[in-house]
Amino acid sequence: MQSALESQPMSLEFQIEATKAAARAGRLITPHGEVETPVFMPVGTLASVKGVPQEVLEELDVQILLANTYHLYLRPGVEQIRRLGGLHRFMAWPRAILTDSGGFQVFSLNDLRKVSEEGVTFRSHLDGSSHFFSPESATQAQIGLGADIIMAFDECTEYPAESERVRQSMALTLRWAERSKKYFEQHKQEVPWNANHVGPDVPVWAGQRQLAGSAEIRSAGQVGTSFDSPRTGSAPTQTQSLFGIVQGGMDPALRNESAERTIEIGFSGYAIGGLSVGEPRALTQEIVAATVLHLPVDKPRYLMGVGTPEEIVEYADLGIDMMDCVLPTRAARHGLLFTSEGKISIKQARYAGDDGPLDPNCGCRVCRRYSRAYLRHLYASNEVLAQVLNTVHNLSFYLDTMRAVRHSIGLG
Amino acid sequence: MQSALESQPMSLEFQIEATKAAARAGRLITPHGEVETPVFMPVGTLASVKGVPQEVLEELDVQILLANTYHLYLRPGVEQIRRLGGLHRFMAWPRAILTDSGGFQVFSLNDLRKVSEEGVTFRSHLDGSSHFFSPESATQAQIGLGADIIMAFDECTEYPAESERVRQSMALTLRWAERSKKYFEQHKQEVPWNANHVGPDVPVWAGQRQLAGSAEIRSAGQVGTSFDSPRTGSAPTQTQSLFGIVQGGMDPALRNESAERTIEIGFSGYAIGGLSVGEPRALTQEIVAATVLHLPVDKPRYLMGVGTPEEIVEYADLGIDMMDCVLPTRAARHGLLFTSEGKISIKQARYAGDDGPLDPNCGCRVCRRYSRAYLRHLYASNEVLAQVLNTVHNLSFYLDTMRAVRHSIGLG
Repeated sequence: MQSALESQPMSLEFQIEATKAAARAGRLITPHGEVETPVFMPVGTLASVKGVPQEVLEELDVQILLANTYHLYLRPGVEQIRRLGGLHRFMAWPRAILTDSGGFQVFSLNDLRKVSEEGVTFRSHLDGSSHFFSPESATQAQIGLGADIIMAFDECTEYPAESERVRQSMALTLRWAERSKKYFEQHKQEVPWNANHVGPDVPVWAGQRQLAGSAEIRSAGQVGTSFDSPRTGSAPTQTQSLFGIVQGGMDPALRNESAERTIEIGFSGYAIGGLSVGEPRALTQEIVAATVLHLPVDKPRYLMGVGTPEEIVEYADLGIDMMDCVLPTRAARHGLLFTSEGKISIKQARYAGDDGPLDPNCGCRVCRRYSRAYLRHLYASNEVLAQVLNTVHNLSFYLDTMRAVRHSIGLG
Repeated sequence: MQSALESQPMSLEFQIEATKAAARAGRLITPHGEVETPVFMPVGTLASVKGVPQEVLEELDVQILLANTYHLYLRPGVEQIRRLGGLHRFMAWPRAILTDSGGFQVFSLNDLRKVSEEGVTFRSHLDGSSHFFSPESATQAQIGLGADIIMAFDECTEYPAESERVRQSMALTLRWAERSKKYFEQHKQEVPWNANHVGPDVPVWAGQRQLAGSAEIRSAGQVGTSFDSPRTGSAPTQTQSLFGIVQGGMDPALRNESAERTIEIGFSGYAIGGLSVGEPRALTQEIVAATVLHLPVDKPRYLMGVGTPEEIVEYADLGIDMMDCVLPTRAARHGLLFTSEGKISIKQARYAGDDGPLDPNCGCRVCRRYSRAYLRHLYASNEVLAQVLNTVHNLSFYLDTMRAVRHSIGLG
């Protein structure tokens, strides 16, 4: 087995450019562009950030998106996306993408899941049909989707949980991490955008569609560049990068052990999973602070599933490089808007006659143009444009927040 | 009564620049910008073209939008919009707007409406509450909303209808047209963006909000221009323009009589109403062709509530200058897309693996960037982005169609 666990070629470069106490500002260089860190990754569950066209995400300077393997596996199916050249090409997004392993969705959306050493049997939340994810099949799915960064298949331990249960779950995640890595090393050449992999399953027309719609591609004068070509370097042998996930519940000692043993297996980056699962926020922070100390300084650190604008700043201060959360997009759909003056519930009647911008300190296309009164009207009238504009603003606020964090770290 | 019916000042100029048989290409100059005709007006019922931000409408070169008085009267209410400076400012749309009189919605959304000489009592489709529209109150509502072009209050005759019923309905519309015009002439100075009207009801902060979000305003270097200022000329006394509506059911003789008597009252433009109410398409065309002959050559002609892409070309050929229809936007929400190769139902499984653009001959931002496979996935997954992208494309297709018609007329 060891032979499969040799170190992978550099498909992901991580450069730390500045530090400030525990915080670091850097740059993640992926096959589909650079990502400035610390970064907040908007969630595009079904290959779409709900309501927001990709060109608007580019305008917001989104450099990396997250998509959910579980959802895409069910609809439209991994094979469909693979045959269309992978996620980048499928969703016309030339920049970096990260997929989760599906483990968290199996955990959170399936009351009837059944976990064994081999993997997890679960039922589709769409039609109740039965499915099975193993470290191998989840990794295979992620290779087919073709994100730049993919995640080892893990078990997200529930909260609260008995100590022995947490230990066993953590140990299972470690065994699954080894299997994920082994499968990845044996199959990573099969990523749809790897020019060296021309197996019989890759349709000859893949890579033919010329797309000139991307503002970025247009501004670079590269009309004709297709979305599935890696953009940096001239390395057709580039592959995806696999991250490991540290589990261990709310026990710092188990987190420490999980981190050390995950690092021994060896990954391109390390995620902290199993948080934001119902525990108090103070505990989340305590576990993050304790765990981050055991992660390598020279690899990206990804805290999964957080948080509020205040929290993402705090986690960046603790040395986290990557975060994702549905909060800005989901809150937007419920009319909850983040502003420099605090949270606003735009549905409130007090905004019906408010002619001012949503956030006077925000330069996004929504705040530059529309009034609170109009946004309140759209929300109260159930107009789809409410969701579109609210989501654009909330994402802008999160991205601005992270820009400010990076700037602050850069100043030292 | 005659004293109130004197001709109005020129707040609307209509220039015919080219003709080709019955068709004319021209220019409508409104207080909020020029509109090239023949024009298709997208419908923004509740002060929003469902799912499409105003900056994208500008990018599509939409020059005039339609909004529905009935819907805005119910939500958020005319007084709310008036106090916020009128529709242009409320929805951050600096270009031209037309509102209907509410008559058609009262007709189509209210089974329990009660028509009298005075007006119509109807129930809100939202909460069942009772309301009353008269020619005076409907005109008052439209002055409060502040569109550039407003419509006389009419009765839309049902189809089919007995000959005597059609005659009486037409006669009622004529009496209401006189009353609409009288009220308009007496109150037209009260439009919210008329600088000469500074009554006690106009809040002092109206006109203060400086908006720089409009691409157009930015490109013109006029940062600081607010949306409620008329853009053309230096005429602070500009008012709205009132159009009359020709009724008369499916009887060419009654249509002729309705046209002549409506013209006698005198309006800035003339609409053909009461069509597209269930009659066969051949009959619609016959009535349009017959009616248009009785409309003044030098005034804009507006055919209400039509049609398919083929039909809007045919009506333009008959000498119609303005049209509106929910078809492109409503069809988009149901996955029906108009293309240069015919209609496409994007929900069909045949598109699941189709890597090509929606319409290879379309240059819109959707066709430049996204594949049919992706659009099909978004629709099948019930993603909001499906509605956004589908609507942008369908509108683009309609606007391109009208551009081609204008070009063809220009060539003579």
